Amino acid sequence: MTQNILKIGILGSGSGTNMQSICDAISAHTLDARIVCVASDVPNAGILDRAKKHGIPCRYIDPAPFKTKLEGRAEDEYIEFLSAYGADVVVLAGFMRIVKKKMLDKYHDRVVNIHPALLPAFPGIAAWKQALEYGVKITGCTVHLVDSGTDTGPIIVQKSVPVLEGDTPDSLHKRIQEQEHKAYPEALQILAAGKWRKEGRRIVTA
Amino acid sequence: MTQNILKIGILGSGSGTNMQSICDAISAHTLDARIVCVASDVPNAGILDRAKKHGIPCRYIDPAPFKTKLEGRAEDEYIEFLSAYGADVVVLAGFMRIVKKKMLDKYHDRVVNIHPALLPAFPGIAAWKQALEYGVKITGCTVHLVDSGTDTGPIIVQKSVPVLEGDTPDSLHKRIQEQEHKAYPEALQILAAGKWRKEGRRIVTA
Repeated sequence: MTQNILKIGILGSGSGTNMQSICDAISAHTLDARIVCVASDVPNAGILDRAKKHGIPCRYIDPAPFKTKLEGRAEDEYIEFLSAYGADVVVLAGFMRIVKKKMLDKYHDRVVNIHPALLPAFPGIAAWKQALEYGVKITGCTVHLVDSGTDTGPIIVQKSVPVLEGDTPDSLHKRIQEQEHKAYPEALQILAAGKWRKEGRRIVTA
Repeated sequence: MTQNILKIGILGSGSGTNMQSICDAISAHTLDARIVCVASDVPNAGILDRAKKHGIPCRYIDPAPFKTKLEGRAEDEYIEFLSAYGADVVVLAGFMRIVKKKMLDKYHDRVVNIHPALLPAFPGIAAWKQALEYGVKITGCTVHLVDSGTDTGPIIVQKSVPVLEGDTPDSLHKRIQEQEHKAYPEALQILAAGKWRKEGRRIVTA
């Protein structure tokens, strides 16, 4: 974590817009990192096309037999893939599976996730919809280290997003995603710079 | 709630800085309201001195025999006091007691509270301390209608506050209070204007 160029391995299930924001930050020299590999649990995920276009090693890795978690033989294969490319950190970018103990032990405090709410509010699925239904006036996104809980790990960066009159789940989600694309590179740069520590469960960068 | 001047009754236990912010907004004509009475459960509370200075009818009302809630004979007395001065809404400004069913029924959706966190995160006491220990990067304050839960009522206004490196509970609390003094008058003006409704548990002003 103290080297200058952070080697990022990405896991994703979707179109890869968060990966794109990381690529863009690297190109703009605001993030001292390199994406060394991309793996997906969805055969035709857009994130794999995006990786190919950028010349990044990428692979679909069959997550069977589990539906919602990454465990067993599949977990081993993901770890081997990330290790083979020398990933320092594992970045979950819309990866729709729960990462389990073996991965978290191997990459202790080096698995990173982004969540579309201001945690600890609205953990779990469709957080923007939860926020809208609850009636909050401010929500946002959270980049955090992954621990064994659901969206409970130490927080690296948060960005706030106002809920506007007339917002639908889609319009709110879209505005949150815009902030995600700023928050993720910013959080990864904190890891790349290596000047952070945990105090209790707080992440301190001073 | 549709009249032009909202008649506010205030309950407080402390120095009354939130009451002061409401007074200031009224003086500045950004809040179409009048504070009609102030009651406290603490005999020498600063909020009573402040009320006297502004010529607002005020009274200490003995909350006995309860330590943390307002119920029974004392509850009746508070309600009678508020009614005698024709309060449209009951504003809790640092009132360190749980308001119970009789008051909430009498002033249904017209008891308002401010909480020093972005609810639903960090309900309960010393919310700024909870937020700091959890390690969030953004917290704030919430003005909400009071229901029978703890800090669970419909949200009128929220303001965000960044958590800064080196923040102590005190420094963070102070910055949250600055936003409280903006949020409370803003929320009360929404009630004064009368153009709001509930959709599910959302408060909509459009």
